Amino acid sequence: MSPNLSSEASPLAVIGTVAVDQIKTPFGARERVFGGSGSYFSYAASFFTRVALVGVVGEDFPGEYRDILAERPIDLSHLEVLPGKTFCWKGFYEHDMNAAQTLETHLNVLAEFNPTLRFSSPPPYVFLANVDPDLQGRVLDQLEKPRLRFVALDTMNYWIASKRESLLRVLARVDAVVLNDGEARQLTGETNLIKAGQIIRGLGPNFVIIKKGEHGALVLGDNQFFALPAYPLDSVFDPTGAGDSFAGGMMGCLTASGEISFDSLKKAVAFGSVVASFTVEDFGLDSLRRTSLRQIEERLSLFRRLTLF
Amino acid sequence: MSPNLSSEASPLAVIGTVAVDQIKTPFGARERVFGGSGSYFSYAASFFTRVALVGVVGEDFPGEYRDILAERPIDLSHLEVLPGKTFCWKGFYEHDMNAAQTLETHLNVLAEFNPTLRFSSPPPYVFLANVDPDLQGRVLDQLEKPRLRFVALDTMNYWIASKRESLLRVLARVDAVVLNDGEARQLTGETNLIKAGQIIRGLGPNFVIIKKGEHGALVLGDNQFFALPAYPLDSVFDPTGAGDSFAGGMMGCLTASGEISFDSLKKAVAFGSVVASFTVEDFGLDSLRRTSLRQIEERLSLFRRLTLF
Repeated sequence: MSPNLSSEASPLAVIGTVAVDQIKTPFGARERVFGGSGSYFSYAASFFTRVALVGVVGEDFPGEYRDILAERPIDLSHLEVLPGKTFCWKGFYEHDMNAAQTLETHLNVLAEFNPTLRFSSPPPYVFLANVDPDLQGRVLDQLEKPRLRFVALDTMNYWIASKRESLLRVLARVDAVVLNDGEARQLTGETNLIKAGQIIRGLGPNFVIIKKGEHGALVLGDNQFFALPAYPLDSVFDPTGAGDSFAGGMMGCLTASGEISFDSLKKAVAFGSVVASFTVEDFGLDSLRRTSLRQIEERLSLFRRLTLF
Repeated sequence: MSPNLSSEASPLAVIGTVAVDQIKTPFGARERVFGGSGSYFSYAASFFTRVALVGVVGEDFPGEYRDILAERPIDLSHLEVLPGKTFCWKGFYEHDMNAAQTLETHLNVLAEFNPTLRFSSPPPYVFLANVDPDLQGRVLDQLEKPRLRFVALDTMNYWIASKRESLLRVLARVDAVVLNDGEARQLTGETNLIKAGQIIRGLGPNFVIIKKGEHGALVLGDNQFFALPAYPLDSVFDPTGAGDSFAGGMMGCLTASGEISFDSLKKAVAFGSVVASFTVEDFGLDSLRRTSLRQIEERLSLFRRLTLF
């Protein structure tokens, strides 16, 4: 698996946020961190495949951040620049590193974002990262259905609570959904995660991927099930972007495999976990930028050994 | 692996409680349930090996409960009967089934319990289930050290808080400790479970097994690590005894394997998880009583398939 750098067509596209974050963890604080779901996703996916990033930034978006994405096989032709400031999230983590605490969210240019997709060769694999489900739906409307092979989406507690009907509409149109354990419970009202996953499958997606942070992930398919612990880390520096990197690694690997099956999804989920395990070792994309596909593959082999019995 | 029913010597012994519980779960309530850490442990272990149960009951202990243990290769010659009532725990579970809520604990005859071990052939494998760490230490004093191959212990939040020094003394003398994630954090003051496990290894035990309920288990050894998700269950009827059944299955399997290594412990932990997954499907020992070793082995094979990638 190595990204095809020469081809212009991207088999995978993501719509997500591109952000300048302000983050504080028990191990340090940083005023300006390059972040956003689209950034983490596309960087993570780019280890496996060429990926198009559909997103928006403001006029203040630093050229050096754009250069970070341009290092990789990431198509930036759908990264719009609008007048105003880039989306900004300010948050911190308590010592347990489990849940991000939001201090401020400034949508800025994201509030006006309504992309028009102009792919000469539309991507068959699409990931709708965590944005307004109405926007996820409008993006899906623009993609030619016969060309789409696999669409997955992410969401969050805010949309489950405030835009439930819109979310249910777009959920019914996708092949897979990636959400965390708390969101799965919130969406279904069911505490048992296996049951919650089964209920979510009933809402449309054939595959349900439930992320459990330090406890790993569960994957449900049609009478199929996969449980994966988390790759063991004795220190997590900054959990920001873990979920988006997981999704990026997963979708990148799935796209590169060319096969849509429960087995290929299992492997993709394991790769996603490993990519996320690198992300959380430093602020922002700093750790992923130091990581090679070879290191990811080596950690996957070790991960496999750590879980075999 | 099948228990040797004809031999009188038990290669494994457990000291633990034998109880009459009163349990309420979202799925039902029962006034009198045969329980206790020693009962669950020995029943679970008996699928793999002959096991001696060191414990105490009161004169009110029902003959039918004793018969349940006697169905199996469980040596009851160290199950003392003292004047008074049998240990009794009354508790309930909220809808999330994660933590037991204790309503009442009546030690009764357990308060006077100070066993004298009279094994003609002392068991090389010993499990000190969750009782007062001073009692765990006194039991260990009575076992001939040259004969002991492997000793493991369990404990709980109550002893960590109230008898920390005693617990640390006995921890330093055992080969393995089994505790849950909350207890590992409480004992060490460390949130990260990998770090917590490493700290606990520094207290003495070569192997640390951290139970995470619906999220599975972690095992730490000397530069060795194993992560196992939980066997997926879409309904948990009564979680009482899950941890003790896990330990019983684990120790029974390890004893039967005849080998003390990280690899044999990994397999034993997987078997322990599977035995516990049967326990929680009904009140008390009702589900285990309907289960065969063959069913346990079949579920282990399925479990292995559900975790391979």
